[in-house]
Formats: sequence, structure tokens, C-alpha cells
Amino acid sequence: MPITMYDLAGAEADRRFSPFCWRARMALAHKGLAVETVPWRFIEKDKLPQPNAGRVPVIVDDGRVVHDSSAIADHLEDRYADRPSLFGGETGRALARFVQNWTETVLQLGLIRLVLVDIYRHLDPENQAYFRGDREKRFGMTLEDFVGDRNARLPAFRASLDPLRRTVERQDFVSGKAPAYADYIVFGAFQWARAISDFEVLAADDPVRAWRGRMLDLFDGLARRAPAYGG
Amino acid sequence: MPITMYDLAGAEADRRFSPFCWRARMALAHKGLAVETVPWRFIEKDKLPQPNAGRVPVIVDDGRVVHDSSAIADHLEDRYADRPSLFGGETGRALARFVQNWTETVLQLGLIRLVLVDIYRHLDPENQAYFRGDREKRFGMTLEDFVGDRNARLPAFRASLDPLRRTVERQDFVSGKAPAYADYIVFGAFQWARAISDFEVLAADDPVRAWRGRMLDLFDGLARRAPAYGG
Repeated sequence: MPITMYDLAGAEADRRFSPFCWRARMALAHKGLAVETVPWRFIEKDKLPQPNAGRVPVIVDDGRVVHDSSAIADHLEDRYADRPSLFGGETGRALARFVQNWTETVLQLGLIRLVLVDIYRHLDPENQAYFRGDREKRFGMTLEDFVGDRNARLPAFRASLDPLRRTVERQDFVSGKAPAYADYIVFGAFQWARAISDFEVLAADDPVRAWRGRMLDLFDGLARRAPAYGG
Repeated sequence: MPITMYDLAGAEADRRFSPFCWRARMALAHKGLAVETVPWRFIEKDKLPQPNAGRVPVIVDDGRVVHDSSAIADHLEDRYADRPSLFGGETGRALARFVQNWTETVLQLGLIRLVLVDIYRHLDPENQAYFRGDREKRFGMTLEDFVGDRNARLPAFRASLDPLRRTVERQDFVSGKAPAYADYIVFGAFQWARAISDFEVLAADDPVRAWRGRMLDLFDGLARRAPAYGG
């Protein structure tokens, strides 16, 4: 029986844009596991399986419900230990958490100031109302103001990618010669941005963009075939 | 025969303050290898073994000369493969490079703006003249101006440590339950700062400071026993 994964979607059911869901989706593909995704929207809290944390990703694997991208990665690594490793050992698992913490405190915080309003444009009216209300309350300003100076922010955002840039200049993937979970963590953020925004966050000659291209090619172009903008 | 390591020193021969030398020193201790360090100063380019790159760390291991902290770590890992691993496998080795790139583009760049002038204060007059001339040419300002607004820079510096902070809040070491090379990379930067500066870069309640304390305790207090300021 394939694994079921609840996956954040836009008004178009195939437009999947959660960075955390993309981590899980790529991790499932890395393990070579069959998955059926269920498109899920912000206001459909009651449509998630029990126990229900009100958020995605959630997977149901042989009746077991697992929430949270990190817990999903740990579950897959431990339950499918005979398949290609996501972490390459306990040190790799620990260091992937550093990459995750960098992604969440630097990369995703930078990206949200560039693309937040573009999420809104890809939602249906009911979800738009929820999203605008929730995020404008959280950030204390309109969605439009939140990203209003994005062209001015772009140079600092690109500079903040230096640790990633220097890494993928010198090796094909963050995890070395082959991709692994640390790559999926970082890639999830970029795939989120390109799924909902035509604002290109990377310069054409940025080594990070070449790495993103390698990630888009993985698993028979899994992420490249998904509805998104640019390359 | 113990390994010989050329190690950057101040006017006091025991004051060792190169972040890159500290990486190598901790890596040697991790492998449980005996080492004799040779204090070396900036202007003693001709005192290094051949082939001579004019920089430290350099080790001489059974007649083989190895330059550069990264090459030294790789050499130790491969030659002493039966001893505790520095990387925990190839994924761990690749991810340690991400940690290194973060350390060199964020942490060390931040620290140098806080402590550069304090290096000068720990050199003898000849090395002071070399250091002031070289660094003032490189940075286009006096050493004093370079760190002049350091109190104003401190909040941004501390904020830049978020990826590290969040990691060592949740696990004892960057590398997980036990320290490994990624920890030595990050620690080398902090040990450099505390070796030559009484300017405390970390708040008393910062989880990064607690981690630094755990690092200072390693190997029978190897780094804690070295001449330095603060804890």
C-alpha cells in the first residue's frame, strides 16, 4: 500500500508550495517509496488524519500517522533502513540539523520577504481571506508592504547564501557527491519560492542556481515537472 | 615519533590564536595522537618546512608535510582510519564543509570586526609592524577603526549565530551527542577570539556559550588550559 502524504496546495490542486512538504516529498523519492499525495489547503484543518496537529506534511504509512518533516525523515530513515540513507549516519543526521537551522533562520526568513504576497495570488478566495488575515496579523503589515521593497532586499538575500554558494561551488550537492536529506531541506525552500512566484531570487550565473537545477533533475524531474515558475 | 605542528603564536610562545591551527590541534586530540607544537610568528616564513606555503597550520607526520587545516583533517581521517572518526562518513565530511563555509563567511567575518586590534596587542614589536602594515593595507583603515564600533556591531553578530544557537540548544554538539570535526571548525573561531581578546562576544546565558564551555572541557581541558581570556 503506498504511503499517503497530505501536501499543501493552491487553488490549482497540483500547485504544491510548502517547503516542509517538499522536504518530505523528496525524502520519500530518495527512499524509492510509492506515495499518493492528497492536496490540502490552509482552511481544511478538519480533513487531516487523527491525531491532527492542523498542519502538513503528514504521512500515513501502513496506518501510522507521522507529523512534521523532521519526524517524517527520521521515520523513513529508521523504518526503511535498508534503502538509500537520508543522513549517512548519526553525524550526518546531526549536521543536517545545522543545515536545517540555517535554512529556517536565514534562507526561509529571507525568501518570505521576497515571495509572501505571491502565495496569496495562488489561493482560492476562501483561503485568501484566511491567509491575508492570519499573516497580516502575524507580521503587523499588509502582505504587499511585507514584500514591498523586495528589489532592494535582493542583494542582501543573495549575499546571505554565501555558505551554501561556497559549498555547491566545490561539490555537486550539499551532502557531497550525491544528494541526501540536507539537500532536500535547502531545496524545499527554493521549490516553495518557485512554485508560487515568478520573482527570480537567484542570478543566472549563481552556483546555487546550477545546484537548484541539479535538484530539479532528480527522480526523473519530480520537482521540475510540478507547476512552478522559471528554472 | 610525535607529529610536529607549526602553530601561530603571540609574543608569549604559549599564546596560540589561529582559528585554523585550533581546528588542527583539536583534530589531533580527537584522534588521540601525540603532537609537539612549534610556536611560529607571522614574520618567520622561512622557518616552515619544505614545501613551504608561508602559512600555518602545517604538520609533519612521519616525514610527510601537510599544509592547510582541511587537508590536515582529511589526512588524519584517512591515515588513522582505525581511530575515532572526525567526520562519521562521507556525508558527514561533506556537511562539515557546509559548517566550515558558514564559519568562514559568517562567524569569522563577524569576529574579526570585534577582535582584530586585540591580535596586535599580543605580538612583539617586529610582528606588530608587519601585522599593522599588512592588515591596514588589506582592510583600508587602521586596526583601531576596523573594530571601532564593536559594541554597536555586537547585537548583529550575536543574531548571526542563530543557526549555531538553535543547533546546540537541541543537541550537545554540532556533530550530535559527541563532538567531531564540525565542532572543531566552529570552536576554532571562538578560541581564536578568546585567546587574544577580553571582549566577550557571547552573552552569559547564550546556549552557544554553554557549548563553548563543553568544548573547552574536551581532552582534559586542552583549550581551557591554553592562555586566553574569559570562559
